[in-house]
Amino acid sequence: MRVKSFAAVLVSGLAMAAATFPAGSAEKKMPISLQTMGSFHVGGKIVEITGQPTREVVFSPGGVPAKVDPNGQYMVGQMYVQYFVPTPKRGSYPLLMWHGGGLTGVTWETTPDGREGFSTYFLRKGWPVYVSDAVERGRSGFAPPQVMQADPLFLTIANPFERFRIGEGAGSWNDDPAKRKVRPGDQFPVDAYMQFVKQVVPRWTTTDPMINAAYVDLLDKVGPSVVMVHSQAGQFGLMAAESRPDKVRALILLEPAGLGDPEQVAKLKNVPILAVFGDYIEQDARWPKIRQNAYDFFDKIRAAGGKVDVVNLPQIGIRGNSHMLMMDKNSDQVAGVVQDWLAKQKVWK
Amino acid sequence: MRVKSFAAVLVSGLAMAAATFPAGSAEKKMPISLQTMGSFHVGGKIVEITGQPTREVVFSPGGVPAKVDPNGQYMVGQMYVQYFVPTPKRGSYPLLMWHGGGLTGVTWETTPDGREGFSTYFLRKGWPVYVSDAVERGRSGFAPPQVMQADPLFLTIANPFERFRIGEGAGSWNDDPAKRKVRPGDQFPVDAYMQFVKQVVPRWTTTDPMINAAYVDLLDKVGPSVVMVHSQAGQFGLMAAESRPDKVRALILLEPAGLGDPEQVAKLKNVPILAVFGDYIEQDARWPKIRQNAYDFFDKIRAAGGKVDVVNLPQIGIRGNSHMLMMDKNSDQVAGVVQDWLAKQKVWK
Repeated sequence: MRVKSFAAVLVSGLAMAAATFPAGSAEKKMPISLQTMGSFHVGGKIVEITGQPTREVVFSPGGVPAKVDPNGQYMVGQMYVQYFVPTPKRGSYPLLMWHGGGLTGVTWETTPDGREGFSTYFLRKGWPVYVSDAVERGRSGFAPPQVMQADPLFLTIANPFERFRIGEGAGSWNDDPAKRKVRPGDQFPVDAYMQFVKQVVPRWTTTDPMINAAYVDLLDKVGPSVVMVHSQAGQFGLMAAESRPDKVRALILLEPAGLGDPEQVAKLKNVPILAVFGDYIEQDARWPKIRQNAYDFFDKIRAAGGKVDVVNLPQIGIRGNSHMLMMDKNSDQVAGVVQDWLAKQKVWK
Repeated sequence: MRVKSFAAVLVSGLAMAAATFPAGSAEKKMPISLQTMGSFHVGGKIVEITGQPTREVVFSPGGVPAKVDPNGQYMVGQMYVQYFVPTPKRGSYPLLMWHGGGLTGVTWETTPDGREGFSTYFLRKGWPVYVSDAVERGRSGFAPPQVMQADPLFLTIANPFERFRIGEGAGSWNDDPAKRKVRPGDQFPVDAYMQFVKQVVPRWTTTDPMINAAYVDLLDKVGPSVVMVHSQAGQFGLMAAESRPDKVRALILLEPAGLGDPEQVAKLKNVPILAVFGDYIEQDARWPKIRQNAYDFFDKIRAAGGKVDVVNLPQIGIRGNSHMLMMDKNSDQVAGVVQDWLAKQKVWK
């Protein structure tokens, strides 16, 4: 650690309670019938680390120090994928769900306030669902510092609240829940915000090539798929589709904050694309520019003969959505917009 | 990073193929019927970090540097839990599955060679299954270095092979698969070893108190449960049962490498305990001592009026099991030993 001075002060030792546990509403739904379920890792490569000194490590407090030799071969760059295959199946292809920056596949699971999330929604619609953790996050693990070549970044509790249009922007966070500034009609379950914060994981800024490679590996393993991405993963979805246009039969971009390679847009001309944006974008400091970048990229795809449908939710009467629209109180309604579009693409029956 | 000299050499850019994908054998089984499924995080506390300099960060290669202020409040010490509730339910309590060191909840999922793992086995038996990632691992995320107070440890590819009785011990690993030394009758799917290595994640040695606290939080949230632990989590299972004896209705210790607080064993007198050990322990350099430590701890529990059943699998004719017995080729048979014991404890009907 380079930083020498710090103070870590315990503000609250009390865990925030999750809003509900196993969600009462979910229990009243029909059972989910699975043909199979499981997980695997794709990608990864072997690197050899040499020339490191042996360290003394105490594995448990009070234990006997043991010598640890860090030199040797390591597996790095692999990606975790968990799958659920329903029966009967109605999706024509597997539905791959790729989360955004600072997060993991948990994005798609139970919402912070305890409702069924997107992964269960689409599973109930008959889609085989594949939820992954990007390389270096969650159950994908991360590599030794010699491979990562940087320290990870950590998000403060305030950061997503102010940056993801949950609060009103910079300065909207406050330790006192009563003083947090939220726009009228905000659909994010702000009372369960601390449950969302627990989903946040560290990220590196040096791993885009490894992440890209693993997503292409996933497409090569699973075969033709429908890909749904969020935020940072906009770039991974578009770049993977540019690399494997035959294997992405439809691409859903939920508030994409990253984009593909503009030199490769012609590869996307046969990939149906849907982009979905939430509310409050005009009032935000950053999102008008982020959305405009996406619009410009879509124009390039269209100029190359491709097709991009854009839905700004407020324009179809769905108001109040944050950047985390799969967690918002109207998440089922947002999922329905995507599901209806997929049905029109004839990849669901 | 303190280490200045290193060499990271790409040995192989080719991903090792998973042995199977969605396992053919699994697809022939009966569908799994779920009442509900989802995930949540338990535990966690808020810490405040102050006095750190602002850093310049380039988020994407070639991008514009942005100033990042690391000072502020962080959520740390939370734990991820994923649950599957079957219908009909036959387990009288939720079955909580706690993995070992350097690993995550993936331990319990699909085996490295693509068969259904313990979590699906017990789900099919009608147990509500709760699989967690210990604090600082997997989808639980990890905290800034000021909280962790140490660098993480990384396992080489060779390490688990030689230490988990997959190979014959120290020196049994070889880059050439044909030269790896495996004992006759070894049940670990050694051809899929690289898939197992991809499950390995970094671990810290400073986090036992945080992990313990989160497991107790989990029991407080879920209520009376059956707890199944592996390896390092032996200590977490026993210490959680000592803290909440009324909430652990049965405890299964699979090759426990860590133990509880010997001063608290009297708390365990009404907790039925099963310990299971695999094969090749006598031939190993470390495992005779690790098992003897467990035996000594069990004697203390018995002296305090408690009950511990010990199964050494070779003594009941089940041979060839490694430390990762939930991944071995006969994993269903090992699960059956546990399931039969649970049925005898009258916590399954």
